[in-house]
Amino acid sequence: MTVTAAQGFLASGVAAGIKDSGDPDLALVVNRGPSRAAAGVFTSNRVQAAPVRWSRRVLADGRISGVVLNSGGANACTGPAGAVDARVMAEHTARAVGVGPDEIAVCSTGLIGIPLPMDRVTAGIDAAAERLSPERGVEAAVAIKTTDSVHKTAVVSGPGGWTVGGMAKGAGMLAPGLATMLVVLTTDAEVTAAGLDSALREAVRTTFDRVDSDGCMSTNDTVLLLASGASGVTPDPDFFAETVHTVCLDLARQLVADAEGASKEIEVEVIGAASEGDAVTVGKSVARNNLLKCALHGEDPNWGRVLSAIGTTPAVFDPDHLDVAINGVWVCRDGAAGESRDKVDLSGRQITVTIDLRSGDESAVIWTNDLTAEYVHENSAYSS
Amino acid sequence: MTVTAAQGFLASGVAAGIKDSGDPDLALVVNRGPSRAAAGVFTSNRVQAAPVRWSRRVLADGRISGVVLNSGGANACTGPAGAVDARVMAEHTARAVGVGPDEIAVCSTGLIGIPLPMDRVTAGIDAAAERLSPERGVEAAVAIKTTDSVHKTAVVSGPGGWTVGGMAKGAGMLAPGLATMLVVLTTDAEVTAAGLDSALREAVRTTFDRVDSDGCMSTNDTVLLLASGASGVTPDPDFFAETVHTVCLDLARQLVADAEGASKEIEVEVIGAASEGDAVTVGKSVARNNLLKCALHGEDPNWGRVLSAIGTTPAVFDPDHLDVAINGVWVCRDGAAGESRDKVDLSGRQITVTIDLRSGDESAVIWTNDLTAEYVHENSAYSS
Repeated sequence: MTVTAAQGFLASGVAAGIKDSGDPDLALVVNRGPSRAAAGVFTSNRVQAAPVRWSRRVLADGRISGVVLNSGGANACTGPAGAVDARVMAEHTARAVGVGPDEIAVCSTGLIGIPLPMDRVTAGIDAAAERLSPERGVEAAVAIKTTDSVHKTAVVSGPGGWTVGGMAKGAGMLAPGLATMLVVLTTDAEVTAAGLDSALREAVRTTFDRVDSDGCMSTNDTVLLLASGASGVTPDPDFFAETVHTVCLDLARQLVADAEGASKEIEVEVIGAASEGDAVTVGKSVARNNLLKCALHGEDPNWGRVLSAIGTTPAVFDPDHLDVAINGVWVCRDGAAGESRDKVDLSGRQITVTIDLRSGDESAVIWTNDLTAEYVHENSAYSS
Repeated sequence: MTVTAAQGFLASGVAAGIKDSGDPDLALVVNRGPSRAAAGVFTSNRVQAAPVRWSRRVLADGRISGVVLNSGGANACTGPAGAVDARVMAEHTARAVGVGPDEIAVCSTGLIGIPLPMDRVTAGIDAAAERLSPERGVEAAVAIKTTDSVHKTAVVSGPGGWTVGGMAKGAGMLAPGLATMLVVLTTDAEVTAAGLDSALREAVRTTFDRVDSDGCMSTNDTVLLLASGASGVTPDPDFFAETVHTVCLDLARQLVADAEGASKEIEVEVIGAASEGDAVTVGKSVARNNLLKCALHGEDPNWGRVLSAIGTTPAVFDPDHLDVAINGVWVCRDGAAGESRDKVDLSGRQITVTIDLRSGDESAVIWTNDLTAEYVHENSAYSS
């Protein structure tokens, strides 16, 4: 059920001592081929961690043989020394698994601005390389957790014997242009680097990029897709893209479900938009509205805060022709009170806010969470 | 110390029964001239309350004789009936104080989406009109409070016997393009409507528009400036504008100091920017970052979250040449760790985050608050 579900991949995870807690904190994923095609999507934050800069570079030719990942330190805002550390991680891993130094991507997550303990990291890489196995995908998924309460994996098999599997971490700093999130996807389908790239970009655009838990975009977000070709099957491109999308959507929803301190999972569905861009803009504005997120936490169907958030966007709509439903009850019609708020049941964990802009046929869904005292506690008591 | 500090103005406040609590909830401010020049700045939210639409219209000719204000109900998202209610408030007030129906602005604040109890409102207007006095400015300031813990007023006198005074309300939903905020300023200086408008716009742009407590922009924000000319003094335009700015800055800082559930007042100072616009964009991105606001609440000088927020903006900067000081300690130099975090004292209520973009000579200051469990509680337990 993870990165080793597809044939041709090995993985492992170890406790390298990067985390003070002694929990697992270093993982490897290695592609044994025959293909080494790969694609990546990275944070759009202009402040980018050293491993992101490194991985962008090695992915440029559409080919990597593996990934080294660590939790317990983001290696972000660490200056020239951090760049050296990311390169050393890649080169040490390459030697340990017997591939070229430019064939290993690097992903780091954890505290910003603090150097990694490189002696422990390199020893951990050696230990992880010795444990590599097609059975240890879960071990890798566990080792990349930070404040995640559970590890996150997903697998979908396509017709004819190929598979897409993946693992993800992320529980805070979840925002547009990718969450604080590391994701490694693997497949044994035969797909070119260009095919992987287009499937991954489209999948990310409509899944991870539409998760907006707390509006905070990280310096380290990375989504990688590696193809071994080991199944010998070349899938239909559309079907392959759809499968990658399904795995990404599954993982994205797991991220929202596990967001730091959240008590509600909120789906903001925007319909009747003049363009998909408008739908996304409105959805994100609503998803980021702290007052609404507090209200939904308190199980208050406060549609006025939805309208206030819509009104801050440049999307096409008429303020007097907006409709809003909360959990299916149209509490706002024509920009004013509609059905009774008392009909809305917000006692469950799942909440859907539907906004009809009544200006076209386009739509989008944004996933977010409520804002809770636990979120404040977790993010003020702990330095990340 | 309020809207009646300037000569020529009367004010009053009463408990009209709009609020269930029985607290004061209706205020009048009347300009007895000789001049009736006025200017207004309103929310840039496209979902605008009925009183905002009304007041925009009556201000269009640069002349009003008074303002009726109520708390306990925003008259926002109330449809065509809400528009009628706003007009009735203005017309009833005009009759009660003996002026034309198009000479009264209307301001409402409180719950969105619920009709005002108009019988109580009109009876309250009659009662308030009978109490009008140059001594009752504080009464008016008290009557416009919602979740404010204190009423907010400011007065500055210019040379030669003229004065600018004002009152404000607002404690949540404080955001760019104006806070949830009603502000009435008065002056007895002789200034044309055009002069008032330019002074007010410039002052709002650099004070209220740079308060970003929780990123939530309201449907009702209104800032009015009324001039009676009763002092007989025509001030130097630059000096007058500076005085209006001083009063607005004083009131803006009172809003931040009283923000719902806040335990810290945070000044985000951006220097070395290529343009003032860049400085404002970076300042607002940092001021809205929930993770940073949590960290500062927890007295954690988390400069990595500052860099992450800067990185989401299109401002001119080099990620490897960013400096950040927290309470004067340059904890980040060249985009990496600088002086020790341990030197930063965050135990007080006032926090300054200084960001040097090292790309020019422009600067701006944004004022915000920390994010606390009390904010979540206040905004989830109460419907506003």
